[in-house]
Amino acid sequence: MADSAIQKDIPACGDNEYKEVAWAIPKFGEKFAPIWINRPKVGDMDVKFEMKYCGICHSDCHLGLNHLGGSMYPMVPGHELCGTVTEVGAKVTKVKVGDNVGVGCIIDSCLECNTCKGGDEQYCEGGGSTHTYNSEKKYGHIGGNPETQNFGGYSASNVVHEHFICKIPDSIPLEKAGPIMCAGITLYDPLVHWGALDGKKMNIGIVGIGGLGTMGIKMAKAMGHRVVAISTSANKAELAKEKGAEGFVVSTDNASMAAEAGKLDLILNTISASHQVAHYLSLLNVNGTIVQLGLAPEPHAVSQLPLIFQRKSIAGSLIGGIKNTEACLEFCGKHGITPDVHMVEAKEIDWAWDQITTINKDGIRYVIDIKKSLENKDFVPKE
Amino acid sequence: MADSAIQKDIPACGDNEYKEVAWAIPKFGEKFAPIWINRPKVGDMDVKFEMKYCGICHSDCHLGLNHLGGSMYPMVPGHELCGTVTEVGAKVTKVKVGDNVGVGCIIDSCLECNTCKGGDEQYCEGGGSTHTYNSEKKYGHIGGNPETQNFGGYSASNVVHEHFICKIPDSIPLEKAGPIMCAGITLYDPLVHWGALDGKKMNIGIVGIGGLGTMGIKMAKAMGHRVVAISTSANKAELAKEKGAEGFVVSTDNASMAAEAGKLDLILNTISASHQVAHYLSLLNVNGTIVQLGLAPEPHAVSQLPLIFQRKSIAGSLIGGIKNTEACLEFCGKHGITPDVHMVEAKEIDWAWDQITTINKDGIRYVIDIKKSLENKDFVPKE
Repeated sequence: MADSAIQKDIPACGDNEYKEVAWAIPKFGEKFAPIWINRPKVGDMDVKFEMKYCGICHSDCHLGLNHLGGSMYPMVPGHELCGTVTEVGAKVTKVKVGDNVGVGCIIDSCLECNTCKGGDEQYCEGGGSTHTYNSEKKYGHIGGNPETQNFGGYSASNVVHEHFICKIPDSIPLEKAGPIMCAGITLYDPLVHWGALDGKKMNIGIVGIGGLGTMGIKMAKAMGHRVVAISTSANKAELAKEKGAEGFVVSTDNASMAAEAGKLDLILNTISASHQVAHYLSLLNVNGTIVQLGLAPEPHAVSQLPLIFQRKSIAGSLIGGIKNTEACLEFCGKHGITPDVHMVEAKEIDWAWDQITTINKDGIRYVIDIKKSLENKDFVPKE
Repeated sequence: MADSAIQKDIPACGDNEYKEVAWAIPKFGEKFAPIWINRPKVGDMDVKFEMKYCGICHSDCHLGLNHLGGSMYPMVPGHELCGTVTEVGAKVTKVKVGDNVGVGCIIDSCLECNTCKGGDEQYCEGGGSTHTYNSEKKYGHIGGNPETQNFGGYSASNVVHEHFICKIPDSIPLEKAGPIMCAGITLYDPLVHWGALDGKKMNIGIVGIGGLGTMGIKMAKAMGHRVVAISTSANKAELAKEKGAEGFVVSTDNASMAAEAGKLDLILNTISASHQVAHYLSLLNVNGTIVQLGLAPEPHAVSQLPLIFQRKSIAGSLIGGIKNTEACLEFCGKHGITPDVHMVEAKEIDWAWDQITTINKDGIRYVIDIKKSLENKDFVPKE
């Protein structure tokens, strides 16, 4: 996809900006290198924080490798940002200097449409939410030079409008909070939307037992439900049970599928590889819903008859809004739910990406230790 | 589909049965003829009613012509039964002799599963609901000879367990009540299930402006919503507006589709001809749901991306339960909503079926006047 990659060199640092250390893919196809980027200076509504950790998400790799086309370089990936507040704007009320905070997948939206007002900024109807990186300034809530693109969390600090800042509760180790704002909220938000906190015990299926799926198992279990893990591979049974699944279905085995047929109220499907959603409909009971979470782009062939004869639904869900992301952090803190993380330094990002894109490490999330990375003077940009 | 048709001759009338006049397709491929059938005598929980009217539904034609395979002959179609109670069993409390009553698409279900107990007998999890005709006795709530198949409403009387009897309010002319228990409830139930009575004004699309669609327009309008009619044909605009639609979309016209893009909270899709549901997803707003009501058997190609990026849902719905059918009758009575009917006699059934299957009469429902049909001694069975 080299043709569709966009090279957008960084403008000179403006008076309303400051220079900061980051680790970037300088041009399409290149390896990671330390660079200087521009960040906005703190405006009235902004929060500046020292970056301490940034998680590495599989979608960082998709965007960094231009798998979807249109990626902008230099690219500083990272949408699982965690750190400590160092400065706040005059009108900021949400956090204060010294607080631990995080930023997930979005850093701006119109904040005026009904969807934003309802707390679902990820579905902003004013023109779509602005992503934490590989995106441009649009709504005027992000300071600095309007020409400077947005850079992600593989960097030493960031400045973000307080609306998109999440407070991180003391109950969560800071290095583990990042993936909760991505993998965690991606499962938490549909669980809440489809009634898992409404007080009734449900039977909940989780398809795909990776980084997303294991978080889903832990959260659905902590919400008091019977959780059934569903995988193409019988090898995942032990991992799924260890994370809290009571049931396990091998989706390629007819007998295993039949044993759970018609039993599930809700299925969260984390598969992003090519698949057919119709395959899982038989597991749903009357009124059951399957929620697609993985960006599998090919069309799925779906007969309408099972939908009609048992009032089943096929839906989709994308991460979650800021309020629910904070609720997810609180929930995870309260129930001791954290992702399984493996710490790396900035110089190991290329290696970590290789691990993620070639080896299927069960549910492991890689997290960059920013402070430690900055100590390695061979892998920070020259003055 | 002659090969798959089942000839199941009627057993001799048992001591627990009585003989009754009916109009049947005696064998696959034959025209309607008057015949004698057996009905169960009244048991403790049963209600016997004199048939006064029976509506003709398009699905009568599909089953009568064996379009889906497996149809049983002789077949007495009809699932829009209306009449007056003439006898009740010792334990019946729901109705009394002289009451106007009706029966819709189902006459039995397990009555024990959670779905039945929740009032959704049409989705019975105990083994599926028993249809008013072209079905066999299964759960023991239907009397008479267990070998005698169930016959529909093209007949002079019927005996049905009180649970499946609907009271018909005085506010509805009896000859117009039948289609409400089929076309009406098919639209009313999903409107209620997806929140149209929850007090918030919605934008509701109705796809297909025929017998189902016009009832949907009238009911959604009476519930206080903005209704948008959606049709492949611009010719339906006037009819749709006359029935209460404020908006009209020609689904084959890109500009017309674009003008309503992202505006609808709920779409009820009545199309049973071959189509692709994905075509209508662009009309839904964030969190919007399209509900499939028409039995289009071919698979639909659905990309998951619009579902994920705007939390849209594709669902289905099948008629409605008994409690909601009664609520639908009350609602229609209160708001003066009735189908547009054309009365026929039994000897005209073949002609009416031709009209239904060959000419697209906008929203007209044909109804058999049973009393008048019985007066025609040339078209009742010989003693």
